[in-house]
Amino acid sequence: MKVAYIQTSPIFGEKEQNFNQIDDLSTDLKADLIVLPELFATGYTFKSRDEANKLAESSNGKTYQFLKSLSFKTSAIIVGGFIELLKGKIYNSSLLVFKDLIKATYQKIHLFNQEKLWFSPGKEKYRVYDINNTKIGIMICFDWIFPEATRSLALQGAEIIAHPSNLVLPYCQNAMKIRCLENRVFAVTTNRIGKESRGDNRFLFTGGSQITSYNGEVLAKAPKDEIHVEVVSIDVSNAQNKKLNDYNDLFKDRNPQLYTYE
Amino acid sequence: MKVAYIQTSPIFGEKEQNFNQIDDLSTDLKADLIVLPELFATGYTFKSRDEANKLAESSNGKTYQFLKSLSFKTSAIIVGGFIELLKGKIYNSSLLVFKDLIKATYQKIHLFNQEKLWFSPGKEKYRVYDINNTKIGIMICFDWIFPEATRSLALQGAEIIAHPSNLVLPYCQNAMKIRCLENRVFAVTTNRIGKESRGDNRFLFTGGSQITSYNGEVLAKAPKDEIHVEVVSIDVSNAQNKKLNDYNDLFKDRNPQLYTYE
Repeated sequence: MKVAYIQTSPIFGEKEQNFNQIDDLSTDLKADLIVLPELFATGYTFKSRDEANKLAESSNGKTYQFLKSLSFKTSAIIVGGFIELLKGKIYNSSLLVFKDLIKATYQKIHLFNQEKLWFSPGKEKYRVYDINNTKIGIMICFDWIFPEATRSLALQGAEIIAHPSNLVLPYCQNAMKIRCLENRVFAVTTNRIGKESRGDNRFLFTGGSQITSYNGEVLAKAPKDEIHVEVVSIDVSNAQNKKLNDYNDLFKDRNPQLYTYE
Repeated sequence: MKVAYIQTSPIFGEKEQNFNQIDDLSTDLKADLIVLPELFATGYTFKSRDEANKLAESSNGKTYQFLKSLSFKTSAIIVGGFIELLKGKIYNSSLLVFKDLIKATYQKIHLFNQEKLWFSPGKEKYRVYDINNTKIGIMICFDWIFPEATRSLALQGAEIIAHPSNLVLPYCQNAMKIRCLENRVFAVTTNRIGKESRGDNRFLFTGGSQITSYNGEVLAKAPKDEIHVEVVSIDVSNAQNKKLNDYNDLFKDRNPQLYTYE
């Protein structure tokens, strides 16, 4: 199957322009799974909770409608981030959309830095979606630093981790090699580029979107400061085989009863 | 405090020569913790379980006596690997020795490759030892690929991971940057060098012993093919602070109730 990232440069608060940017970049894109950045339509650097609130939507809102149209246009499964309004709270969420057949959301569990001022942390467990015989798990950005996030998805059978991101630290791309290797899963980490300077907050987003193989190999990597699209063919069945050699199966070799969890 | 690795080139089966090699290398070595390789006195590449059995000792044997004398000579806490004979089974173990005050063993939980033919897997949980106000955890070599190993030690308060190794794969040193970063602990990964070619088995040990900081920085790294000793001063109190920024404490931010464990 073919997996793709679309590394964009969102304009803060301008959803329609950000949809159009992706629409342009996805013309002629042939992929089975396309991963977009975290909060790709809103931007990231909020001045207040109220500002984030105003950009929030239900999972049936404009962003969902755009992702559904993108899925129909490309015939791909789409994963991308948005601010989700749910029962009066707002979350840093990602939508997974496949035409009008599948819609799912993940509310980011591990919020980074000032995200804690704007968003509620997700309280639903990590989940895996079986779509067209491929098992896809979702995590968002800072989830990478908690090995339990990727592990939870992989133990549930995820073959590919869709990983929308807005990265500002220099560690994640290297860490994803280890996450994929230790779990023998593929990952599509899609970052954004550009600066946002609003109020007292400044962020430089570091690009370098990365498609990582089950053996820790980097299959594609974007520049740090350019809009970029990449498609890679992968044999997803490799993620079903947890054997490192004739004697070691990385999942069967685990000893959960000997580990400390809290 | 000062932590050190002694990267050696063991001679298969020649315990006395291997003790002497370390004795020579530790002359004038000033450190509070010295980590030796996995199975540093026996070599690694066994032809049979019987051969490994013949090189096994109780935790009061020759290797313990050597480590105790090394601890008295250097005034350091010593961690190093040996084949442990315990209740009729043999284990790929490490001893932790501090003069005649402290003796502890760890039986390797995650056996690599043909080690499964010779050794029984450890069935005791990871443990942390508080010695001279420093909290030390032990893991051995292939334990690195299971994030639960370092995590279990760090959650129990380990500040430094003593990590005797006989590495043959190219991933561990990079992975240890992530293990230290995600747990905010220090690690001393001590590898060996040299080739062993015995029976059908050939291993090239890849050196590159590494002292890794709580922030993922490499503080010292040995050559891949030379005997090497390095001492690094660390401020171990950094490992007690799990805060990455004003908002994120990497341990308090965990959500154990949302993770999947089996």
